[in-house]
Amino acid sequence: MKYGLVGYSGRMGKLIREVFDEHGHVLVYRCDDKTEEAVERPDVIVDFSLPEAFEKTLKTAQQYDRPVPLVVGTTALNNDDIADLKAVSKKVAVVYARNFSKGIRLMRKIVDGLNEWGSFSANEDWDVEIIEKHHRFKKDKPSGTAKMLAEAFDFNVPTSSIRAGGIPGEHAVLIAGLGELIEIKHQAISPRTFAEGACFAAEKAVDLEPGFYTFDDICKLEEKNG
Amino acid sequence: MKYGLVGYSGRMGKLIREVFDEHGHVLVYRCDDKTEEAVERPDVIVDFSLPEAFEKTLKTAQQYDRPVPLVVGTTALNNDDIADLKAVSKKVAVVYARNFSKGIRLMRKIVDGLNEWGSFSANEDWDVEIIEKHHRFKKDKPSGTAKMLAEAFDFNVPTSSIRAGGIPGEHAVLIAGLGELIEIKHQAISPRTFAEGACFAAEKAVDLEPGFYTFDDICKLEEKNG
Amino acid sequence: MKYGLVGYSGRMGKLIREVFDEHGHVLVYRCDDKTEEAVERPDVIVDFSLPEAFEKTLKTAQQYDRPVPLVVGTTALNNDDIADLKAVSKKVAVVYARNFSKGIRLMRKIVDGLNEWGSFSANEDWDVEIIEKHHRFKKDKPSGTAKMLAEAFDFNVPTSSIRAGGIPGEHAVLIAGLGELIEIKHQAISPRTFAEGACFAAEKAVDLEPGFYTFDDICKLEEKNG
Amino acid sequence: MKYGLVGYSGRMGKLIREVFDEHGHVLVYRCDDKTEEAVERPDVIVDFSLPEAFEKTLKTAQQYDRPVPLVVGTTALNNDDIADLKAVSKKVAVVYARNFSKGIRLMRKIVDGLNEWGSFSANEDWDVEIIEKHHRFKKDKPSGTAKMLAEAFDFNVPTSSIRAGGIPGEHAVLIAGLGELIEIKHQAISPRTFAEGACFAAEKAVDLEPGFYTFDDICKLEEKNG
Repeated sequence: MKYGLVGYSGRMGKLIREVFDEHGHVLVYRCDDKTEEAVERPDVIVDFSLPEAFEKTLKTAQQYDRPVPLVVGTTALNNDDIADLKAVSKKVAVVYARNFSKGIRLMRKIVDGLNEWGSFSANEDWDVEIIEKHHRFKKDKPSGTAKMLAEAFDFNVPTSSIRAGGIPGEHAVLIAGLGELIEIKHQAISPRTFAEGACFAAEKAVDLEPGFYTFDDICKLEEKNG
Repeated sequence: MKYGLVGYSGRMGKLIREVFDEHGHVLVYRCDDKTEEAVERPDVIVDFSLPEAFEKTLKTAQQYDRPVPLVVGTTALNNDDIADLKAVSKKVAVVYARNFSKGIRLMRKIVDGLNEWGSFSANEDWDVEIIEKHHRFKKDKPSGTAKMLAEAFDFNVPTSSIRAGGIPGEHAVLIAGLGELIEIKHQAISPRTFAEGACFAAEKAVDLEPGFYTFDDICKLEEKNG
Repeated sequence: MKYGLVGYSGRMGKLIREVFDEHGHVLVYRCDDKTEEAVERPDVIVDFSLPEAFEKTLKTAQQYDRPVPLVVGTTALNNDDIADLKAVSKKVAVVYARNFSKGIRLMRKIVDGLNEWGSFSANEDWDVEIIEKHHRFKKDKPSGTAKMLAEAFDFNVPTSSIRAGGIPGEHAVLIAGLGELIEIKHQAISPRTFAEGACFAAEKAVDLEPGFYTFDDICKLEEKNG
Repeated sequence: MKYGLVGYSGRMGKLIREVFDEHGHVLVYRCDDKTEEAVERPDVIVDFSLPEAFEKTLKTAQQYDRPVPLVVGTTALNNDDIADLKAVSKKVAVVYARNFSKGIRLMRKIVDGLNEWGSFSANEDWDVEIIEKHHRFKKDKPSGTAKMLAEAFDFNVPTSSIRAGGIPGEHAVLIAGLGELIEIKHQAISPRTFAEGACFAAEKAVDLEPGFYTFDDICKLEEKNG
C-alpha cells in the first residue's frame, strides 16, 4: 500500500511511519507545517495532526483524478470541518474517529452494554465512578476518553483524575454495589497502539465504498470477514 | 411475603434469613437435616442447601393445593434433579441458578459481549487470562465462576488461582493486546450479596407464571418494568 | 481473661464481643449510655466508644484496689483526655491508638521506610498520590488514615477520595516515576479486623508494666517474643 | 562524561545510548560481537550484554594506565565471572547488579521491612503470594525478580506467572490476613527505566574509590548527599 502522511514529523507522525513501515507500506506523500513532498498518488492519506492542517488535507485528497481515501484522527475538529469531511465522503471512503484504539472501543461497548443490562439509572443500588490516571505532563482533567465514557451514562458520573510520573494512560469505570464491585479498566501500554489502529483503518479504507466510517464501523468489518 | 427456607441453620441459610427479615418477609416454613417446622403455606420456598435435601424440597412445594414457587440455588444438582425441577416448572414458577449475584451476571454479559465484538478467536492479537482469588479455606481450583467465565470463550483460557487470607472472592478477566490491556474484575464484598439476589428472585417468583427461569431472566424482568 | 467493655451495644461493641467470645474471654463488666452491669473486677477494660463515655471509663478503671489496664480506641479524644490517660498510665498499662489494624500499621511502616530510602523530597523524579475508597455512607474526605499516610511525607500529597457502594475501605499510595510505578495498597475485608486488633492488644495489656503504649509498641512485643 | 558501551547494537545497548545521549554523555568506545571502535579512554564502561562478552570487557577496562570504572548489568554471570569482577574492583570502582531499577530496589526494601516488622513466619495469620505479569514473549517463569522477592521470605511463597500481550512487567506481593490485605505492586512503564538506572550508576562510578558496589550502595550515596 502507498500512503500519504500529514504531520509526518510530529510525535504521532513518527509512530505512524514506524508502524506503517513495519507493515510494508510505502510513504509516497508527506507534509508538515513547513515542507511538502509528493512522489505519486497515495492509496490512502492519514492525518492525525492539527486542525490547521485539515483544509489542506481535504484539498490534497481531491486533487487527483480519483480522490484518495482518508483516515483522520485529528481531535478538535469543529463542526464545519466535520461537515466538509462528510461532503468529501460522498466521493471517497473517509474514516474519522477521536480514538483509534481497539481497547477503548471495547471499553465503550462494555459501558454501553452495562447501561443496557443494568438499569443503573433506574435504581439506587449501584454507584458509578470513573478514575483515570495519566503522566504528569498531561494538563487537561478529566481526559477526553474519561468524558466519553461518562457520557455513556444518563446521570452524572464522578470522575477522579490522577497525574503522576510517566503513566501512559489508564481509565477505570467502577460499578459499586453494596455487596459487590465491578471494575472495567483500560491501560495503554504504548502510544503505538493508536498508530496500529490507524494502520488497521488505512488498510481497510483502501477497498471501501465511498462513505463516512467510524473506527467502530471498521472494526465491525473485520468481525464479519474474520 | 411468607417464605419457606430449606437449610435454615446453615451458613447460607442464616444469611438468607437475615436479608429476608430486613425486607420484612416472614418465615413460615423451615427445615434442615434434623428438624422441620411448618406454620402455614409459604408464598415461595427458597433452597440453597445440599443436593440431599432437594427431593424433599420438590415434594414440599407440591404438597399444597396450589403448588409453591421455588427459588433454587443448590449447586451440584445432577441432570435427573434438573429434569425433575423442569417438570415441576410446568405447574409453578421455578427460578434456578448456580449464582445469584447481579455483578457476576454482568461479568458474564460483558464477557459474552467481548466475544461478540472482539473476534478474539479469529486472530492472534489478544491474549486472554483469568485470575481468581479466594480465601485460604476454599479448596477447589479454579472456582466454578472462573470456569463459567472461561467457557464463554471458544478457546482455552489460562486461569491462575490464588488462595490467601480472608479474600471474599475476586474474578478478573484480562484481555491483553500488545499495546493495551483491558481488565474486567468482580469483587465480592460480602456473601450477603447472594442472599440479596435470592430475595430479589423470590419477590419476583411469587407473581410469575409457571415456567423455568434463570437469574438472568429475573433480572431482565426488572429492566422491563424498571 | 475477664474483660470489661464500654459501649457494648454499639456496632463496634458487638464486633468486639464476638471476637473476644471466640477467643474464650468472659465479659464481666459492661456499660453503654443507658445501662451498667458489673459482675466482678475485669482484667482489662476495652473502650472503643464515644468521647462522652471516656471520663467514666477512667474512673471505672481506678475504682478497684488494683487499677485495671485499659485498651482505648476512641477516636476524637481531645488533648485533655489524652493527658488524663497518660496520668492513669503511671499506675497501670494503657494501650491507646486511633487504629488497631495490623495491616494499616504495616502500611505506615512501609511509607516511613520509603521516605527513608527514597529521598522523595530531595528530587523531582517521583510523584506521590494517595487514592482512598470507602462506602457511600462515609462522609468525611479524605479519611483519617489517608491523612495519616499523607503526613508521613514532608510535602503535600494529592489525595483522591472515592465514595461508592459498600466498599469496606481501601487506601493506596502511588509512587510514580517516569519509567516505573510502585503502588502500596491496603484493603479492609471486614471491620472485624479492628476488633481482632483490640483483642490482641487486650491480651498483651493484662501482663504489661504500667505505661503508655501505642498499637505499634504492642506489635513489637510480639516480634520480640515471637 | 565519556563512556564506553559493550553491546551497543543490541536492544538494551540502544536504550542506554539514547539515555546517555540525553544526559549529554559522549560515546568514545563501543563494541559488539562483530565490531569494536575506540576513540579515546572512556571515563566509565557500561556492559549490559551477554556473558560471552564479559571477559573482553574486563580486559578493556584494564588496558589503560588508569583502569576504567565498570557498570555491569549482565545477568547470568557465573561464579568465576563474579570472582574476576571482584578482583578488578580492588583496582577500580565496579558497580554490579542484576537489576538497575530504583523501583525494584524499593520493592525489595519494602519486602525486607515487612519481614522485619511483621513476623510473617512466626505465626499463621498472614498468607503471602507473588503474582507477576509479563509480555507473551517472556519464556522463563517465574521471573528473576519474582524469585528475588520470594527469597526475602524464609518460607515458600506461591508464585503465579501471567504471560499475555505486551505487558512490560508487573510484580505484586500480596500479604493477606483474614480481615485485611496489603498489596505491594511494581509496574515497569518502559524498559528505559533500566537504562536510566545504568546512567545514574555510571555518573556516580566515575568518582568512586575502588570497590565492589551494588545498585543499592549507589542509591544510598545519593541519599547521603541528597
